[in-house]
Order: sequence, then C-alpha cells, then structure tokens
Amino acid sequence: MRRVGIVMGSDSDLGIVQGAMETLRQLQIPYEVHVYSAHRTPDEAAAFAENAYQNGIGVLIAAAGKAAHLAGALAARTVLPVIGIPVSSKTLDGMDALLSTVQMPSGIPVATVAIDGAKNAAILAAQILAVEDPALHEKLSDQRKEMRETVIRKNADLQEKLNA
Amino acid sequence: MRRVGIVMGSDSDLGIVQGAMETLRQLQIPYEVHVYSAHRTPDEAAAFAENAYQNGIGVLIAAAGKAAHLAGALAARTVLPVIGIPVSSKTLDGMDALLSTVQMPSGIPVATVAIDGAKNAAILAAQILAVEDPALHEKLSDQRKEMRETVIRKNADLQEKLNA
Amino acid sequence: MRRVGIVMGSDSDLGIVQGAMETLRQLQIPYEVHVYSAHRTPDEAAAFAENAYQNGIGVLIAAAGKAAHLAGALAARTVLPVIGIPVSSKTLDGMDALLSTVQMPSGIPVATVAIDGAKNAAILAAQILAVEDPALHEKLSDQRKEMRETVIRKNADLQEKLNA
Amino acid sequence: MRRVGIVMGSDSDLGIVQGAMETLRQLQIPYEVHVYSAHRTPDEAAAFAENAYQNGIGVLIAAAGKAAHLAGALAARTVLPVIGIPVSSKTLDGMDALLSTVQMPSGIPVATVAIDGAKNAAILAAQILAVEDPALHEKLSDQRKEMRETVIRKNADLQEKLNA
Amino acid sequence: MRRVGIVMGSDSDLGIVQGAMETLRQLQIPYEVHVYSAHRTPDEAAAFAENAYQNGIGVLIAAAGKAAHLAGALAARTVLPVIGIPVSSKTLDGMDALLSTVQMPSGIPVATVAIDGAKNAAILAAQILAVEDPALHEKLSDQRKEMRETVIRKNADLQEKLNA
Amino acid sequence: MRRVGIVMGSDSDLGIVQGAMETLRQLQIPYEVHVYSAHRTPDEAAAFAENAYQNGIGVLIAAAGKAAHLAGALAARTVLPVIGIPVSSKTLDGMDALLSTVQMPSGIPVATVAIDGAKNAAILAAQILAVEDPALHEKLSDQRKEMRETVIRKNADLQEKLNA
Amino acid sequence: MRRVGIVMGSDSDLGIVQGAMETLRQLQIPYEVHVYSAHRTPDEAAAFAENAYQNGIGVLIAAAGKAAHLAGALAARTVLPVIGIPVSSKTLDGMDALLSTVQMPSGIPVATVAIDGAKNAAILAAQILAVEDPALHEKLSDQRKEMRETVIRKNADLQEKLNA
Amino acid sequence: MRRVGIVMGSDSDLGIVQGAMETLRQLQIPYEVHVYSAHRTPDEAAAFAENAYQNGIGVLIAAAGKAAHLAGALAARTVLPVIGIPVSSKTLDGMDALLSTVQMPSGIPVATVAIDGAKNAAILAAQILAVEDPALHEKLSDQRKEMRETVIRKNADLQEKLNA
Repeated sequence: MRRVGIVMGSDSDLGIVQGAMETLRQLQIPYEVHVYSAHRTPDEAAAFAENAYQNGIGVLIAAAGKAAHLAGALAARTVLPVIGIPVSSKTLDGMDALLSTVQMPSGIPVATVAIDGAKNAAILAAQILAVEDPALHEKLSDQRKEMRETVIRKNADLQEKLNA
Repeated sequence: MRRVGIVMGSDSDLGIVQGAMETLRQLQIPYEVHVYSAHRTPDEAAAFAENAYQNGIGVLIAAAGKAAHLAGALAARTVLPVIGIPVSSKTLDGMDALLSTVQMPSGIPVATVAIDGAKNAAILAAQILAVEDPALHEKLSDQRKEMRETVIRKNADLQEKLNA
Repeated sequence: MRRVGIVMGSDSDLGIVQGAMETLRQLQIPYEVHVYSAHRTPDEAAAFAENAYQNGIGVLIAAAGKAAHLAGALAARTVLPVIGIPVSSKTLDGMDALLSTVQMPSGIPVATVAIDGAKNAAILAAQILAVEDPALHEKLSDQRKEMRETVIRKNADLQEKLNA
Repeated sequence: MRRVGIVMGSDSDLGIVQGAMETLRQLQIPYEVHVYSAHRTPDEAAAFAENAYQNGIGVLIAAAGKAAHLAGALAARTVLPVIGIPVSSKTLDGMDALLSTVQMPSGIPVATVAIDGAKNAAILAAQILAVEDPALHEKLSDQRKEMRETVIRKNADLQEKLNA
Repeated sequence: MRRVGIVMGSDSDLGIVQGAMETLRQLQIPYEVHVYSAHRTPDEAAAFAENAYQNGIGVLIAAAGKAAHLAGALAARTVLPVIGIPVSSKTLDGMDALLSTVQMPSGIPVATVAIDGAKNAAILAAQILAVEDPALHEKLSDQRKEMRETVIRKNADLQEKLNA
Repeated sequence: MRRVGIVMGSDSDLGIVQGAMETLRQLQIPYEVHVYSAHRTPDEAAAFAENAYQNGIGVLIAAAGKAAHLAGALAARTVLPVIGIPVSSKTLDGMDALLSTVQMPSGIPVATVAIDGAKNAAILAAQILAVEDPALHEKLSDQRKEMRETVIRKNADLQEKLNA
Repeated sequence: MRRVGIVMGSDSDLGIVQGAMETLRQLQIPYEVHVYSAHRTPDEAAAFAENAYQNGIGVLIAAAGKAAHLAGALAARTVLPVIGIPVSSKTLDGMDALLSTVQMPSGIPVATVAIDGAKNAAILAAQILAVEDPALHEKLSDQRKEMRETVIRKNADLQEKLNA
Repeated sequence: MRRVGIVMGSDSDLGIVQGAMETLRQLQIPYEVHVYSAHRTPDEAAAFAENAYQNGIGVLIAAAGKAAHLAGALAARTVLPVIGIPVSSKTLDGMDALLSTVQMPSGIPVATVAIDGAKNAAILAAQILAVEDPALHEKLSDQRKEMRETVIRKNADLQEKLNA
C-alpha cells in the first residue's frame, strides 16, 4: 500500500498532527511525518513533494497555520492528492489558515478539511487509498459502523439516565 | 477506471458544475452527473451515495450553496472520498457554503475546494483516481506541464508587449 | 399535548441542551431527548424525524455545532417545525454552525435561534405548541410577566444600591 | 384557522415579502400584511403585536434589514411565535440583519430564517399552524412531495440532455 | 446641567457600565443608571426615553449585548442623542452587538462607540453636554491635556528605562 | 446656533455627504463642508478641528472610507463631539471603514453611525445641537412625527392596494 | 538605482498591476514585470526571487488573489523586501488574499498593502529605494506636496461651488 | 546605518514591541522606541515622523490596536517607509487593527505585517535597510540559513523520536 506523507509547517503543529497519526495507526496505514516549512525550507518541502510519488507515497497531508501556504506549496510540486489541515493560531481562530488553504487558484486543488481537523484528514487519506483497496474499504466501512454504534449506545445510555 | 459521480443540489448549480464536467472530459475520465437535493430528495441522495461504490464510482463531487449539506450528506452514506464545492449565492459570497461544507465533524471528512472551484474539484477527483493509475498520473503530470508552459508563454508575451 | 423532540448531534452538546430541558420542565411540556448524528447515524436521525408526527411529537429541536446539518437533515424528513440551535465549538465561535443552520435553501426552513440559545429554543417550541393551547399561552404570558418583574426588581435593587 | 401576520419594516421590503405572501396564498392560509417600523412607528408595531393573539393571528413574520430590530420588537410584545426574515441591504449582504435578528437574548426567541428567505418564512408559519391542523399538515406533506418530484424530474431531464 | 441617563439591558452589563459611571463622576456630570430591557420591559424602556427630555436628561447611554436593540429602542422614543455601547458576550466578540447598534435605519441614529467602550460613551456624553457649556468644555480640554501628559510621561519613563 | 462642520476625506465622498447636507438644510441648521484628508492634508485637518470651537462650530461630521482615520484624527484635536460616517468602497462593503471609525481607543470617542449613513449623521448632529435648543428639539420632534405619519400612510396605501 | 521587480500570479492581474507600473514610471524608477505563478511555475518564481538581488533588483512587488501565496513564496527565496498586493476576485472581496498575504509566519515578512492597492505598492517600493537615495526622497516629498495641493484645490473648488 | 524608529500607541503594547526590539538587537541594527499616541499626542507623533529622516531614521515601525491609526498618522508625515503592526486586543482578535492599518487610501502606504507580528516588522525593517547595505544583506541571508537549519534539525529530531 502507498504511504501517507504528513508534513507540518512547524513542530508546534505536532499536537494537532498526532490526531492524524493515531487514526492512521488504527487503520494500519503506513505513514511518514516531517517538519518542512513552505517559507523556511522551501527546497526541502519542494523536494519532498516532487519525489513523493516515486518514493511510494500515495497521499500528502499538510498542516499549517496563519498564511498557510504549505499544502499549496506541496500541491504545486506533485499531482498526488494533497489534503490541507488549516491550523488555528492565537488570533483569527484559523480563518486565515482556512482561506489560505482552501481558496487555491484553478489548476492546483488542495483537499481542505475542517480547522484543526487532523483526524478527518487521516480518514480522507484512507478513503483515497481505499478507492482501489477493497480491504481498506472494508476497514473504513467497519470504522463507520462503529461510529454509528457508539452514537446509538450513547443515545441508549442517555435514555437510561433520563428514565432513571 | 472507476467513474466520478457528480451531484448538484439544484439544477441552478449546473453553470458551476460544467467546469468540472469539461475538465473530466479533457482527462477522459468517465463521470455521471445528477441533481439530488440533500433536503428535497434525501432518500435519492442517500441511495446514490450508498450504492456508489458497488456501481463503479470511485469519487463523489457535490456542489451546493447556502447551508450546503449535500457533500456531508453523501459522505455520511459512503466511505468513498467526497469532494465538496461550496457554491456562492446572492448573499454572503459563498462563505455560508464554505463553512457548511468544510467544517465537518470528526469522522466524516469532506474534501473541500475553493468557492465555485468546480475545475479544481475535477482535478482533485482525477488525482485521487490516479493514485493507482499510472496512465492517469502521467496525464495529470502532462496537464501540469501545460499549465506551466501557458504561464511561461504569457510571461514571454508580456515581455514582448512591454518591450514593443 | 404534543411532545417536543430534542435531538443533539453529539452527547458533548448535552451541556447546552440541558438549558432547553429545564425550561420545558418548568413549563410542564412533555419532551424526549436523543443523540442522533446527521452524519454518523443518518438513518436513525431520518427515522426519528419521519415518525415524529405519528409518534405524537409537535416540534423538533436540533442542537449541533460546526457544519451543523442536523436541524436541516431532520427538516428534510418532516413537515413539523424544526428549531435549530447552532452550538459554538473551539474555533469560529459558532459562526459556522449559525450559517449551516439558518441559511437553508428554499422549501425547507429551520427556525434558528441564537448561538448556544437552548433556552430560547425551548420557549419557541412552547410558543408553537401554545398557538392552539390557551392554557400554555397563559403560562407563557405569565412567564413573560415574571421576566418583566425580575428586570423591574433588579432596577429597583440597583437604585437602592446607588442611593445607599 | 389563525391568520399569519406579516410585518415589514419599510415598504421597500415588499419585493422580499411578496415571496411569503405568494406561498401562503398557495397554501390557502389567511394572512394580513403591514408596514410597521420598529423605530419610526414603535407604538403601532407594539399595538399590532400585543393584539395579535386576540385578533386571531397565530404566527407573526417580520422582515427588516440592517440593524433589524423589528422581529425582536414584536416578540417583546407577544408570546406568539415570531419568525424573522433578515433582509439584505446595499452593504454587508444582510449579515447585520441576520445577527440583529437571530442573536436574541434569553427569554425572547425569534425564529430566524435565511437572509431574504421569505418563502421559507411562510412555510415555517404554515408548519407552525399545521401542528394542530391535520389538513394543513397533509397539504404541506403534499407540497414536500411535489418538491421532491420536481427535483427527480429535473434530474431525469438532465440525464436525457446529457445522453442526447 | 442636564443629566446623563444610562440604561443597561441586563444587570450583567453593570461591570461594563461602571466605566461610564466613574468617568461621569470624575467630570462631575450628574447621571442616573437603570436596568431596562428592550425585550423584557419594553414599556419601561419606552417610558424612560419618552420622558427623558422633560425629566432633565440631556443624553442617553445604552449598553447591550448580542442582538442589541436597546439603544435603537430608546432612540425610537426620543430625539435626544442616544449613545450605544455594544457589549461583547460569550461568542462573536461583540460583532453582533456592534452591527445591531450601529446599522440603524435612516431617520433614527444611534451614536455608537467601540465594543465595551463605556468610558468613551461617557466622554462623548460629556462632549455633547459641553457644546453649550463652556465650563465643561474647559474641563474636557483639561482632561485631554492630562491624557497627553500621561503619554508624554510614559514615553519619558520608557526612555529612562531603555537608557538605564 | 453653532454650525455643523462636515469634512470628507476625498471629494469622491461628496455623493454620500450630500445626504447630510440636504438634511441639515431641511432642518435650517447652518453648516460648512470641506475636503480634508487625514493623510494627505493632516495639518489642514488638524487646524480645522483645533479651531472649530472658536469658529462657532458645535459638532463635526467626518466621512471617510477604507482605513478611515479622518473622524479619529479630528477627534484627537477637539473636544467637540465628532460624528463618523464609515463610507463603503469597492471591496469589503465598508467593514474596514466601520471598524477604523468606531473602535477608537479609550479617551477619544467617535460617534459612529451606519455605513454610508450620512442622513443619520446629520440628524445626530441636530440632536446634539438641540439638547440646549428647544426650538430645534421641537423641529426634530416634528420631523419624527412626519416619519411616523409617512409609515402609517404607506401602511394604509398597502392595505388599500391589497384589498383592491 | 536598483530596479523594482513586479510579479503577478496570473496575467488577469495585469489591470491591477498597471497602477503600480504607471506610478513607477512617473517616479522614473526602473522596473520589470513578470507573470510567475507560485503554484503553476514554482521554479520560475523561485529562480526569479533567488536571483533578484544579484540581478540588480532592490524591491519585489507581488500581486495575487484568492489563496495568494505568491508574495510569501518570493519572500521565502530572498531577503529583499517583498511587497504584497492582495487582489480581489469574484467572491470574498479580497479578504482571502489579504489574510493569505499578510498573516505570514515569524521569520518571513511580507509588506502588505491594501486590497487592490497597486499604486501604494509602487509608492512603498519607491520609499524603500529612497531610504539611501536623497534625490528619490526629494521626488517623493514633492509628490506628497502635490497630493496635498490637490486636496486643497479640491476643497477650494468645493467652497466655490457651494457659495455659487 | 540609519536607525529604526519604533513607535507604540500605548505602553501596553510594549510586550508586543519587545519582539521587534530583540530582533533588531540580534541584527545589531540601531533603533529607538517611543510611546506616541495618534490620538492623545498627535503633535508629538507628527513631529517625530516629520523629523525622522533628518534625525537619521531610515524606517518607522508603528504598533497599535483597535482603530489603529498610528502607522497611517506617521506615514502622513514622512515619506520614509512605515511598517504597521496591527495589535490584537480583547475583542475582534486584531481584525479591527489589521483593517485600520492595511486599508490605507491611495498615496500613503503602510507596509503591514501580521497581527502581533513584531518580529517580522523588525526583519522587514532590516530588509529595507539592507537594500543598500551588503553587510546587512549578508547577515539577513545568514539568519535565513539558520532558520532553515533549525527546521531541518527539528525534522531530524522528529524522525529520531518516531523511530525510537
């Protein structure tokens, strides 16, 4: 299976990114994680994206805050799908990162998930890899069923509590 | 090759969606297009998403405006990747559709592209299908090279015009 | 009297929803409360809304955050009035939930109250049930008079404090 | 059947309000329409709301723009349900009217619909009146079925056009 | 000298309003303070504003949050100048209160100050009363000079600290 | 009677400012109008404000767009009340001008009216001058009555039209 | 004198950029203009910025819309000052471009001017070049005086017109 | 070398401004720091800017919050480049300061950096001074290399930690 390549713009984004790592581990999807800044290490970020396909990567995930160019900078260097996680910072609640990530010009899409939505980025990456991987598709369907059952159980718990 | 399933929430979104259709035709990617409203035809929308995988669809694209629930409603019924196009309407410039599409709760991602970004939705769908399709990967790389050459030619034209 | 059906998208919304429950208890209006997610349990949410009228429910209240589709998803399955409470989350202060709840497309309204406005959702539900229930109408008028008297008393207290 | 009382803050809102009037006519729901400004005719607006219940009105609809206080001003004078239509004006796209209408303080709800959402205001009013009126409930269910069939027909038309 | 009439929509706004009270005391401007809600006590609020001029009030200050109608509701009942303080609440940072206060329709102005800007509301009230009161004009000029001197002294302190 | 001093930041704001001029003429309030830019002619703007009181001006009105500093710059040079009109420009709908005008720091208030709200700026100026001018107070009360009657007449016209 | 290097992300930005070109011509400052996209021609954009200093460029100006990464991408490749012009596009009024340009992470500044503010970008570039160029400093001072005189003349014209 | 002149609108901005001071010290660029308020000490602020060039200053940095006029007020009095730092305050997250700083009218630019972006303001000032100062240019290039190496080292640390 192709790996997921996770890149964060700063090691301060690790707290957010761990949500993605954990989800990929649960789904047994191989991944690698890097700190590459679009602005401080543009060459390293570019090289990573340019070689990703040959290096066996299937999807990229980029997490960055403020004027979050990282996802777009990677997308400019590969035709692999790139998922962007807009990371919230001290001001503006991540709205700057959201617009900087999602409003990409025609030709170079970034698949943007919710602000700080690292877990969903990982699930989206898995969904992409599952398109041609029936076993992973199955695993995702099972995960979905568990989500459903969790909600149903919580509802049952609530009914019990209310009727107690 | 798996098909792309395009769904629009209202036939008034067709003008936007045609940008995606044209791009898929150019890339020779098979697709189907439907009008299914998350609110007026929830069963039809649900059935379409639930059967998409068995019906040979690989990626879904959903275009909707205002409180744009369509992409999320489809994503709730399939583990195929769902791409959301937030469509701008008469007020709020598509900000309502953007937030309704991208801010999905944990567990059910929507791969959101720019407001009215139908062409990018199609390219993203192609990128997803290309992960395990070297020929399509090649085609996307070629398309990217052409984009690059177009910019370079436009720059050359500009230099000529300025020096004339 | 028809019951109020309260649905929350996640059990983490219970803190907000309790404001509605308490108000309904004070007004002696029967209600039920459920956890149904528009995205994780779309079938359960749909079934609840579709059967609500026959099951003796008169008004629905839906509380959800972020890309808050719950109220709209219920409204798509019933012609009972659906009240939406946009719930604030860690970023964006509930603006995403507000726009996802209120900006419904033509044909399927959601009666939206303020961000985190659970108490007002309950009062609105009571007002709806009171249209054809003179006793409840009376009770709401009394509640309103008490609100007025509370303000008048607080003003009197303030005058006393200032003149002390 | 109780009537719907529609109030607009300025006669310039008539273009928007006609969407509500037309929908109510189609549903054969009796209504009256008035121009009362919360700021220019506060007494007339107050008197209208205070007497609405005795005068046989069941639901109020208020349409106003900018710092849209009208719905709240009516709601302060009656315990009938009040539906607010935020009307867009030359600047800010109706965001000012939306926040002025929906963010009501605890105790006095306004059932807010989408910006310029007059048709949905009328449907919501009908839904409220239908809670205890099985015939109207039936009519709304039929209207909903027609909406569904319209979408299905449009989808069929689209398929035909695409396959032509 | 005419008094300043301060009104707050809820006694929870007292913390904000005290900034205005303190400033008026320092300027020896007589004032009264009341809790009147535009929505819970519309008659009391209206009566206060309608009688303000005859009761010797010269300027009104209204502090309210969320869908802040209070300043506008008072302005609808008097031609005295009404100053509005938009009060921030738990979500939206006071943007709802700002737009609800400042975006008044043509004919009924509200003199809006900054979010939570109670001190400035008091100074503005004093400036209004000073138009025809040379002694108060003088006092405000002196206050302004003191502000200037405070900044100059702080700058001097900073220079000293930096050169130490 | 003291005059109203109107200042616009650019002669392109004249279209907006004429709404204020017309209203002052109707109220027979003397005024002067100037083009002074806070940034291009800071000395002229400062001199105008510094001399305004001695020159018989009672209230200032400043109209400016974008980073609208004009009202604040005048307010920094006088203790006369300064009314700010945020003027909308090609982008951002006047939100930049609104925040630049209203969010003044503690000590230097600007009485802000609605975006492009020139007529209300004039009425507010008149209200300020009327605090100690019973004849003008009367005139404003009459103007308010006319507003009321206009609404009542429009409502009557509407009733006639609907019943025709 | 070092040249100004103007880069636009798309030739559709030429209309905006011409405002900068004209201003530089008036100030007789040499410049070059290019079309380089941060996403379609990342290598060309990088090479341009990396070689700018050696090629005799002193300041860069970058104009781009939507998720405007261009200024930041250039700034990542040079320590010359980079001026960013956020360009407005069909939706969001340039707010996306503004945040994508100005909210740069620590270490890599972009000197951002107003949305569509090409003329100011050129003046800022000239101010930067003038720091060590007394003749250009003089020219800018003269330009500033002319601006002032234009306003003064417009004010005089207005007085004449009003007194006519 | 010309000095950097830092001005803050209030001594409460010192916490933010120290980020700029520290960066300039590291780069051994001489600077001075002042507290001058655009509104409380307009003459002192004006005099500082008017004399800055003759006093050996090469670039100005202005830090202010809310309706942040300081950078613009300085820019109105000098043709030296003025860098604006929008400072966040208790509400609105600095959006008011950002728009008040960046949206300058044509003719008077302010080089705006990120909200609270004091360090970047200092680097931008250094970049401006470095245009004609090869030694400083070198120093900035070295600083940039260190930034790059820091990221590379952090990435290496992360790889080690993950493989441990």
